Amino acid sequence: MRTSIATVCLSGTLEDRLDAAAAAGFDAVEIFENDLIASASSPESIRARTQDLGLSIDLYQPFRDAEGAPPSRFAAVERRFRAKLDLMGRLGADTILVCSSVSPDTIPDDALSVAQLRTLADLAAARDMRIAYEALAWGRHVSTWEHSWEIVRRADHPALGLCLDSFHVLSRTASYQNVRNVPGDKIFFLQLADAPRLDMDVLQWSRHHRLFPLQGGLDLAGFTRAVLDAGYTGPLSLEVFNDVFRQADPHRTAVDARRSLIALQNAGLTPPADLDGIAFAELSADASSGPELETLLRALGFTHSGQHRSKAVQLWEQGTARILLNSGAPAAIRAFALESTQPEQSAKRAEQLLAAPLPRRRRQSEADLTAVAAPDGTEVFFVRTSPAGWHDDFLPTGESADGAGITGIDHLSLAQPFDRYDEAALFYRSVLGMTDDEAGEFAAPYGLIRTLAIRDARRRARIALSVPVLRRGDWAPAVPHPQHITLATSDLSRTAAALHTAGIEPVPIPGNYYDDLEARLDLPAGLRALGAMYDEDEHGHYLQLFTPVIGDRVFFEIVERVGGYRGYGFANVPVRMAAHRAQRHRKEVRG
Amino acid sequence: MRTSIATVCLSGTLEDRLDAAAAAGFDAVEIFENDLIASASSPESIRARTQDLGLSIDLYQPFRDAEGAPPSRFAAVERRFRAKLDLMGRLGADTILVCSSVSPDTIPDDALSVAQLRTLADLAAARDMRIAYEALAWGRHVSTWEHSWEIVRRADHPALGLCLDSFHVLSRTASYQNVRNVPGDKIFFLQLADAPRLDMDVLQWSRHHRLFPLQGGLDLAGFTRAVLDAGYTGPLSLEVFNDVFRQADPHRTAVDARRSLIALQNAGLTPPADLDGIAFAELSADASSGPELETLLRALGFTHSGQHRSKAVQLWEQGTARILLNSGAPAAIRAFALESTQPEQSAKRAEQLLAAPLPRRRRQSEADLTAVAAPDGTEVFFVRTSPAGWHDDFLPTGESADGAGITGIDHLSLAQPFDRYDEAALFYRSVLGMTDDEAGEFAAPYGLIRTLAIRDARRRARIALSVPVLRRGDWAPAVPHPQHITLATSDLSRTAAALHTAGIEPVPIPGNYYDDLEARLDLPAGLRALGAMYDEDEHGHYLQLFTPVIGDRVFFEIVERVGGYRGYGFANVPVRMAAHRAQRHRKEVRG
Repeated sequence: MRTSIATVCLSGTLEDRLDAAAAAGFDAVEIFENDLIASASSPESIRARTQDLGLSIDLYQPFRDAEGAPPSRFAAVERRFRAKLDLMGRLGADTILVCSSVSPDTIPDDALSVAQLRTLADLAAARDMRIAYEALAWGRHVSTWEHSWEIVRRADHPALGLCLDSFHVLSRTASYQNVRNVPGDKIFFLQLADAPRLDMDVLQWSRHHRLFPLQGGLDLAGFTRAVLDAGYTGPLSLEVFNDVFRQADPHRTAVDARRSLIALQNAGLTPPADLDGIAFAELSADASSGPELETLLRALGFTHSGQHRSKAVQLWEQGTARILLNSGAPAAIRAFALESTQPEQSAKRAEQLLAAPLPRRRRQSEADLTAVAAPDGTEVFFVRTSPAGWHDDFLPTGESADGAGITGIDHLSLAQPFDRYDEAALFYRSVLGMTDDEAGEFAAPYGLIRTLAIRDARRRARIALSVPVLRRGDWAPAVPHPQHITLATSDLSRTAAALHTAGIEPVPIPGNYYDDLEARLDLPAGLRALGAMYDEDEHGHYLQLFTPVIGDRVFFEIVERVGGYRGYGFANVPVRMAAHRAQRHRKEVRG
Repeated sequence: MRTSIATVCLSGTLEDRLDAAAAAGFDAVEIFENDLIASASSPESIRARTQDLGLSIDLYQPFRDAEGAPPSRFAAVERRFRAKLDLMGRLGADTILVCSSVSPDTIPDDALSVAQLRTLADLAAARDMRIAYEALAWGRHVSTWEHSWEIVRRADHPALGLCLDSFHVLSRTASYQNVRNVPGDKIFFLQLADAPRLDMDVLQWSRHHRLFPLQGGLDLAGFTRAVLDAGYTGPLSLEVFNDVFRQADPHRTAVDARRSLIALQNAGLTPPADLDGIAFAELSADASSGPELETLLRALGFTHSGQHRSKAVQLWEQGTARILLNSGAPAAIRAFALESTQPEQSAKRAEQLLAAPLPRRRRQSEADLTAVAAPDGTEVFFVRTSPAGWHDDFLPTGESADGAGITGIDHLSLAQPFDRYDEAALFYRSVLGMTDDEAGEFAAPYGLIRTLAIRDARRRARIALSVPVLRRGDWAPAVPHPQHITLATSDLSRTAAALHTAGIEPVPIPGNYYDDLEARLDLPAGLRALGAMYDEDEHGHYLQLFTPVIGDRVFFEIVERVGGYRGYGFANVPVRMAAHRAQRHRKEVRG
């Protein structure tokens, strides 16, 4: 189906927005009136630009307070409507969105609304144009899609049809199934927007918090299916008012937007392959952090088992936990690989979903390693470790070690850039076929943090995303939020003892934390001495230990899941963050 | 009265917060449990620090899910409560806040709650401690202050009293007058928080949007008076959960917080003096912007009428509009002076309200010019222009000009730093005795903008504050939001003609803007040719012209108020901002 996006979804000048929509592969745009009014370009110039870009203008919107007007005001409505039809002629647009009136003087009389809309439809039809009539969720008299359909049906005018907007429908009701019974050719336009489920004034919810489909909590898939079942053949068009998207790079937002429509349509899309876990995590390291990371990995019981045949990349292993150390850049999680049952299938789906491909890394004697860039720039590989996979590209060092209980990578925690949090969530959900696992919001020492963990169906690959609720300002320490690799251990005491023996102590957890925990729970013995944090759920409990931060932004968490605990210890995030901040502060004071 | 602040109001480590509270002059703090748990410092160390800082710990909070517990769970409540009393002993705190239970298993039985709170009060009393019981607005069984008082009254225990929280009371009801009838000695604690009036889930409203008193829309003054009328003698204590304050410099926030309590108490406070307008605005200018500003002022009909006796400061005048040009720094609004009927009274009130004093500028043969720093750093002077005021410090140049219709300074528009918007609003309201005039929210090309205009009672001095809804990120142009001086003219056509004659054109307003305006309104003739923007209200209409931006961030607006128009043309802000951006862009491309 054709895809379209309203200019109001994007940031910048109208030209910036059109360019971004075209670059992301949209077929069409809705011109949002205020964006045109603020533009220095004439309608003719905008029309020429859209044509050059291969875009059509599928909707001009919105036209407000038209129907239900007191007869004394309707002459002014007609004058305004004629002027907008003139403008549409200049733009080359043939459909105008008329939204239900919000004016306090609106007369609650369907017959009047029908008559007035017929008058406007006559004006439109005389120019081969048409009206898509939409019920705003906060409309004065007409506020449900059923009511707007009743009026369109009664008006029975070929130039008057419905505009259905998923937000306006789903924010008010879950009963949209009768949409199927509307004749498809009377649905002139379909606007799609998702949103988180919020209990707030619907106008404010709509103006600030809309999201692209599959980023929120509304049933976009079901609603879209119902509209298509009705026989709608127009474009799938996005109309999303979102505070973050309004000020973010429009090129990124447009790609995010189109990805949402591709995932929503799910037509001809290669299904996600099953994931068997995280095959490796690759850290960059520089002259200062490299030796620190090597010392730390050795202390954790890892073996430096391989050396890349041609590059300055080390392979460290323990159990199924594999860490690559890639020298040359400050310490950070540069890449990770997902163990896919069908790497090529995974890569194909990623490509279909507009994941940015990265230059392939072909290593000597190695099959292509296909990688895509996640929204935060992290490289994501799809691999099979054996037989004959990426692993063979490392020459064995012959080193061996006893290990310290580590069995694999439990999950990765990736701090996201402020503007890309919802984009990242959709990326992992859609590209990897993952689902949301647990979400939270926490007060960290320098402001609130939002966290979302996502996972594959079998809980083998897990990723926790986090972002500050507000972009940090001058007062917050000028260091990035750390990322971390969480390693699973079968015996946290053993891993802790190994660290201790190697002279590395975990981040000190405040005594106040244990005092509080002991007041509330019956804890495993020795928790305080171990320096571990603790959480529990209905399945079991969770022990967590944290290494110091290496360089500016990487550390390891070591966790033991006991009795099938399923969470991520999110409740402990504020204390852990404060502990890392305190450690960094002490280091700075000393240093 | 004693003033206190909860640590949760502030950002940083617990020590950062205590230091900030003490520096701002608070007498006491509430220790918010999570802040202590995350602290690496022991309770004894926190106690010592508060003592060194001259602070007492007037409340430990919160203790959750205590009353209404199923008997099988109450043993665990007692254990937890004892541990917290131990902790309070170590902290040197004697009052604990118990908030009404939110646990789903809460039993809705007042007799049970009474009995359980009596048990806990016995435990507290045994240590000379006491419980302040608070109804959370979202409490499971107890959610109104009346209900909490009923329980406290029935328990009739000397160690059990009420905690009243303005947010929990006023978010649910406007009927707080009966608070006066509660015996004052049974009100153990008073927590104060304001908030904007928002129609949303009360828990989310409380957690993210609280403000300091007089910053929001709740009746803090009336509520506080009622509690004091009841005979309450404890501290006025702030408990504000706010996303911005949580990540802003705690020293600034603490001053803002204490200013709110001083203004709220209004005890012994010098009343604000009447204002007669804006006496002058002072622009800084550097080698590049200085000559541009001089050219522009001359084009606008200003006369370079005076030169400072000793400094590189020029005085430009027209009507009562006076602009000082102070060389040496990039173009910006460095200062402004308010024409006060009693400058010393104004300055005294500013000092009482913790306005940061600035080094006095004593100019030769001149009385002291007292200035304070507004939250954004702008210098604010209180002056009388005549007789024998600041004006005499400028030697007449003897220049004269015909003028171009400018009559005075209509208002100033000051873009605020992201973290200081609510602080700035309170500053101008309290220090200058101004009131809110008009507020708005607008979609600018690079994100949403929030605006608030405030004014004195007689509409002689007006200031418009603005701030982006989200702190700008990498994508937005790396230039500050412009500030501007709005000049009133008696004849916009005349001023425009003078500009044109001098070869300066106003910022070009897009044709699309006029097309839209003409479709909606009957406009004065020649508006489009004039390049002016237009607004109207029930009193009259408003014509606006904008000069180009000089340097990075200053421009002039010229306005004609016709027939008593009272607004600020806020609806035109997005188009004006886009026009300035477009002009800047063209300049960059050319340059």
